[in-house]
Amino acid sequence: MSFNNTFLRAARGEVTDYTPVWFMRQAGRSLPGYRELRKKYDVLTLTQTPDLAAQVSLEPINLLKVDAAILFADIMLLPIAMGIDVKIVESVGPVIDSPINTKADLAKLRPFEPPKVDFLAQTIKLLRNDLQVPLIGFAAAPFTLASYLIEGQPTRKWLKTKRFMFEQPEAWEALMTTLTDATIEYLKVQVAAGAQAIQIFDSWVGCLAAEDYRQAVLPHTQRIFKALGELDIPRLHFGTDTAAMLTDFANVEAEVIGLDWRIDFAAARTLLPHKVLQGNLDPVAVVAGPKVFQPRVDQMFAGMTEHRNHIFNLGHGVMPETNDQHLRELVEYVHGK
Amino acid sequence: MSFNNTFLRAARGEVTDYTPVWFMRQAGRSLPGYRELRKKYDVLTLTQTPDLAAQVSLEPINLLKVDAAILFADIMLLPIAMGIDVKIVESVGPVIDSPINTKADLAKLRPFEPPKVDFLAQTIKLLRNDLQVPLIGFAAAPFTLASYLIEGQPTRKWLKTKRFMFEQPEAWEALMTTLTDATIEYLKVQVAAGAQAIQIFDSWVGCLAAEDYRQAVLPHTQRIFKALGELDIPRLHFGTDTAAMLTDFANVEAEVIGLDWRIDFAAARTLLPHKVLQGNLDPVAVVAGPKVFQPRVDQMFAGMTEHRNHIFNLGHGVMPETNDQHLRELVEYVHGK
Repeated sequence: MSFNNTFLRAARGEVTDYTPVWFMRQAGRSLPGYRELRKKYDVLTLTQTPDLAAQVSLEPINLLKVDAAILFADIMLLPIAMGIDVKIVESVGPVIDSPINTKADLAKLRPFEPPKVDFLAQTIKLLRNDLQVPLIGFAAAPFTLASYLIEGQPTRKWLKTKRFMFEQPEAWEALMTTLTDATIEYLKVQVAAGAQAIQIFDSWVGCLAAEDYRQAVLPHTQRIFKALGELDIPRLHFGTDTAAMLTDFANVEAEVIGLDWRIDFAAARTLLPHKVLQGNLDPVAVVAGPKVFQPRVDQMFAGMTEHRNHIFNLGHGVMPETNDQHLRELVEYVHGK
Repeated sequence: MSFNNTFLRAARGEVTDYTPVWFMRQAGRSLPGYRELRKKYDVLTLTQTPDLAAQVSLEPINLLKVDAAILFADIMLLPIAMGIDVKIVESVGPVIDSPINTKADLAKLRPFEPPKVDFLAQTIKLLRNDLQVPLIGFAAAPFTLASYLIEGQPTRKWLKTKRFMFEQPEAWEALMTTLTDATIEYLKVQVAAGAQAIQIFDSWVGCLAAEDYRQAVLPHTQRIFKALGELDIPRLHFGTDTAAMLTDFANVEAEVIGLDWRIDFAAARTLLPHKVLQGNLDPVAVVAGPKVFQPRVDQMFAGMTEHRNHIFNLGHGVMPETNDQHLRELVEYVHGK
């Protein structure tokens, strides 16, 4: 079996034989092997144990026939490597008992040292031995990471994060600079070990007004993408709730822009003619099944004359409630378009 | 003291002496009088007791000097009047033990009869006696109402709601039709009693893909606004996370479109040249205070040559954490622009 580089070619804007597919959270609770492993291991143990993390990353490749693997990791591995005590609490998410609230708290963040994530480099090497599709590495964007560090737990209001940004602009700038520096080094470790593309997740950035995003966030994200530019790999950028900041969001130097499901695919094509678009089926449509997702996929592909500038994905992560058979059928359906 | 009709004139697109201000959730937990009343009464009792509901509605007029009052009510009063058993649970929100999951469940919704909300008509009459500013009535849009009825409790995933919409399109259509019919009658009661403008809140519609919104939601919302058209009052429409559907959203026959804080005010002005825009300061900026909100207000008013086509508001409800002194200062600041 030869290496399938369809995803990488599509990410570079080349015409391909078919539209490649992968899913955010493709390695996770919707797959039986992962659910079995989770009975024995917590999430952080899985991510920090190379043979287990590789096994989890491989499962969707074998089972779903997707065109790219994504490293099984957690966005909190970087702050953990920087000395922050993070717990992943079931049905809650990452919890930090001692969050960052002041400029003085920034001292809690130790400089990032690559050996602290040696397990990730090992996972990547294991995966590259086994994979016949490209491997995507990833990190959180500094805004999303900062939000977790400031809130101490998942939030839907981002009150502390925004107050920090609005009321302590110097401390905010310092925090974002520290996180940006560390993220660049963290991603370089992944690419050096063998990651063939990088996606930056700014999952929470859509809570901001567009102007606040432009002033306080975009320059930092941009610095990460510029730094990755030296590494000659496709760069992918995804966030949710980004419709109001889409053109700004796309100003970063990323080849691929991920769209959440809210955004009209055709409208995004007009707004971002020079980007490869990734997305953006509503994840609930896959939970519902083929009768629901097929007409929606048809609509995304309507008027398509060549397989170009589109990497198929969902508009957010695979929901845990998703039947893996539906995911398989979706991959097959997209491959047949 | 004479009646101040600045809000109504602005809502009709007329040039006014200054830009009127009101706040979504202006009557609520950020005000001392409301917090006192809540020690003695639960939310539903407050909304269902005319002299108390009137007292709560009046507090921000006297304290904050806003240019419009909004009826203190709850969007669940309509389904309650239709026979649904709703509990408002502290720090959770509306909870329905017996949610709507099938077409057969639609039988739980009894036809709406105006006498069931006679307390609202009484509240409105009391308020009109006392108020020197216009009174806004309101209802939830049918999508948001349907979401509550289907989920049974607040959600951030809308999995059940979307599955209902995607998998049971006929039942969905029937549910939306029933809710739309009832909402029209419910709003007519409010206008007949004296409400001088109506805002439809589609708080949760932003969870949908634009195309799903167009197909399964927009026609129903539009029917409400058309029916209100006979009543010769300004019609306001607000939703959150609507950036990706803004032009569709604005296709409803409403004079005023409320913007959430994510949406760039200048960009919305270009997209919706024929609408009065309402909004859209990030509510966290008011929590933070004048040093934070003043430059953001300045930016919204930059380039303004006359007071027209803008009703100032926040981009979402006042947060409970807001200092009422900050709200007062914000009203004064906007009035001075």
